Amino acid sequence: MCRCVLAVATICRIVRMGIIVQKFGGTSVATAEKIHNAARRVIATQAAGHQVVVVVSAMGHTTDELIDLAKQVSDNPPKREMDQLLATGEQVTIALLAMAIHAQGRDAISFTGGQIGLLTDTVHTKARIREIDKTRILSELATGKIVIVAGFQGVTEQGDITTLGRGGSNASLVALGAVLKAEVCENYTDVDGVFTADPRLVPKARKIDRISYDEMMELSSFGAGVLQTRAVEFAKKYNVPIHVRNSGHDRPGTWIVEETKAMEEIAVSGCALKKDLMRVALKNIPDRPGIVAKIFTTIAQANIIIDDIIQNVLDDGTANISFTVEHGDIADLKPVMERLLAELGGAAGYEKDMAKVSVVGVGMKQATGVAATMFKALADQKINIQNISTSEIRISCLVSRADADHALRAVHSAFALDSERP
Amino acid sequence: MCRCVLAVATICRIVRMGIIVQKFGGTSVATAEKIHNAARRVIATQAAGHQVVVVVSAMGHTTDELIDLAKQVSDNPPKREMDQLLATGEQVTIALLAMAIHAQGRDAISFTGGQIGLLTDTVHTKARIREIDKTRILSELATGKIVIVAGFQGVTEQGDITTLGRGGSNASLVALGAVLKAEVCENYTDVDGVFTADPRLVPKARKIDRISYDEMMELSSFGAGVLQTRAVEFAKKYNVPIHVRNSGHDRPGTWIVEETKAMEEIAVSGCALKKDLMRVALKNIPDRPGIVAKIFTTIAQANIIIDDIIQNVLDDGTANISFTVEHGDIADLKPVMERLLAELGGAAGYEKDMAKVSVVGVGMKQATGVAATMFKALADQKINIQNISTSEIRISCLVSRADADHALRAVHSAFALDSERP
Repeated sequence: MCRCVLAVATICRIVRMGIIVQKFGGTSVATAEKIHNAARRVIATQAAGHQVVVVVSAMGHTTDELIDLAKQVSDNPPKREMDQLLATGEQVTIALLAMAIHAQGRDAISFTGGQIGLLTDTVHTKARIREIDKTRILSELATGKIVIVAGFQGVTEQGDITTLGRGGSNASLVALGAVLKAEVCENYTDVDGVFTADPRLVPKARKIDRISYDEMMELSSFGAGVLQTRAVEFAKKYNVPIHVRNSGHDRPGTWIVEETKAMEEIAVSGCALKKDLMRVALKNIPDRPGIVAKIFTTIAQANIIIDDIIQNVLDDGTANISFTVEHGDIADLKPVMERLLAELGGAAGYEKDMAKVSVVGVGMKQATGVAATMFKALADQKINIQNISTSEIRISCLVSRADADHALRAVHSAFALDSERP
Repeated sequence: MCRCVLAVATICRIVRMGIIVQKFGGTSVATAEKIHNAARRVIATQAAGHQVVVVVSAMGHTTDELIDLAKQVSDNPPKREMDQLLATGEQVTIALLAMAIHAQGRDAISFTGGQIGLLTDTVHTKARIREIDKTRILSELATGKIVIVAGFQGVTEQGDITTLGRGGSNASLVALGAVLKAEVCENYTDVDGVFTADPRLVPKARKIDRISYDEMMELSSFGAGVLQTRAVEFAKKYNVPIHVRNSGHDRPGTWIVEETKAMEEIAVSGCALKKDLMRVALKNIPDRPGIVAKIFTTIAQANIIIDDIIQNVLDDGTANISFTVEHGDIADLKPVMERLLAELGGAAGYEKDMAKVSVVGVGMKQATGVAATMFKALADQKINIQNISTSEIRISCLVSRADADHALRAVHSAFALDSERP
């Protein structure tokens, strides 16, 4: 009899050891009331036998308000100071969530990125996580506390605060999930999960129940806002399932998991749209070996991601090169380009308001005619395709921003992704 | 000729070594425009040949807004989390001031309390500074940067953020001045200096040009809001002059310095008023040896400062004890009292709305009749004195809060402190 009780106790203890990392995005912690709702959910998860680590974003529009404040002071603030400023947003939320959990009768403790030794590289405003010291987290969990961590932020070895880029709280979520070997990373947001397209642009979009890491990465890279590419990449590397759910109810959302056989039967799982792209056209660049490599190496060293590279060699021994870049990177790109052109010769033109529509699916590897279907859907709507790029599981078309929403809806319908009940 | 130039260069270098620590209070950094004004002043000080360290408070009413936010979430938030929350206020300002200085063409770098190793004890919301690691500050100053430090905050050895209590930015200012052996700590605020009384209550109050550390400590302890007692205590200990000035203009303010002979010629230098005091009356406490000591030791251990202790021993072997405490300490005091009374017996009554008017002057040590003048001034106005307490350079009278402002003005006039031109 005694042995049985002991065995049950041991099992219970093993079950209790499971760590769940939950993340609440800005809209899920936008008010005191919503913070209390999040606290209730966290406490319920703990009461169900889990150890809980919570990652939070800044409340509502706090980050935008802080950016506005910085703009009032400076047109081009130093990035280190921008990080020092923005990191306060999440610090406010962690403290308030800890207070709410205390007010509801459970014990919680909050940590900034620096306080849990979330070390990053030194690329301010876009830092990447290098390591997390889990010592303090585990010791606080062991005392029965709920541990709350500020998302989006870390610290360099020198102690300077860094931020992980927009949506970087998801990077924090997944990195903590990986380090703590969590059962699941729950990403609470204000939508029901990952959709076949952005429901604000495509009212007929459907929620996806399960999607592979690779598909999610492509969707994220090419415009789906729910999760950043690198967060998913990290989850894939450490095989941590991510569950994207709505903080407003208990229904399951979208699970992002390893690829399964069943997933391959669908050619296109979802569509994405990336607006706010700019085409940079370089004219009369000397057409000598190594010049193109020099240009793109220099841009990469400035941590700017480019795409859609097209090169035309002219008769006069020069070349025209064009590529696209996100609007947000223009301020960083322009001085780099000016230095390059001063050295190499040539001129640069900037054309705003491009967009890119993409379709993604692991089934594409086997299916035929996916590209043809996409091009026909756009042609039927008289939408001009300015460039095409592909991966093994993605096809993207560059279009004018004016055509963007229309293009997304056309493609979504063409691949039979529209829900029956819009 | 060459030698002369070298000599001049050496002198310049020596002059350049002088460090000035400047503090800008919340009203002096309340808007982007005011932050730029502060930046201009800082840059001007550097241009005059000094190395400059700047301490800043939270912008305007930020701290109050954060406290309101906490109240929306919890009636009694854990103090550790309160500190985590409040420390963000100063962090916002340091980043913005660094941006403003950059925008004006000079180099600056901002630090939180934790980032410069400003270590404190673990008494959250009222922490005391233990040490400051000046290494990083000095190395940044050596590269020509202006160093900006978040006031009001520090960090425990374990890395938990602490705050230094209301107005704690002045403690940061003076501690930095001491550690860095600064020429002067300049405390920029929205008033012209230290006044003979609070000008909002006594329109005829005059600005004081020079005042001794001891007088300033007494004035601060007994209600003058410009500087906290412990900041002045620290400045005295390390003999760092403090210059309280208006950030709106360049005229000199009040210098707080070592006592001089000239100061002793004035019996009363200034008056102060402390409102929001509560009288705690303990009834029927057992009159046994050690009981009173136990009560006050327990209260002291809870970091609550009390004053005006009066004890009456009754015939029945019990005693009545009363003392005053600040309203802000009531939430902390009540549970302590309840535990004490449960153990000792007796009952507690709480009477709000007391006030204390004080006169301070180093000349009081020699002068006669100061107390008599004060009591007569109050008696002439039919103000009832409920208790009297004194130090070598101060006399304080406890009065009803309703009489407080009137009492202050009466005493101010009685000691001929009124300015000729109100």
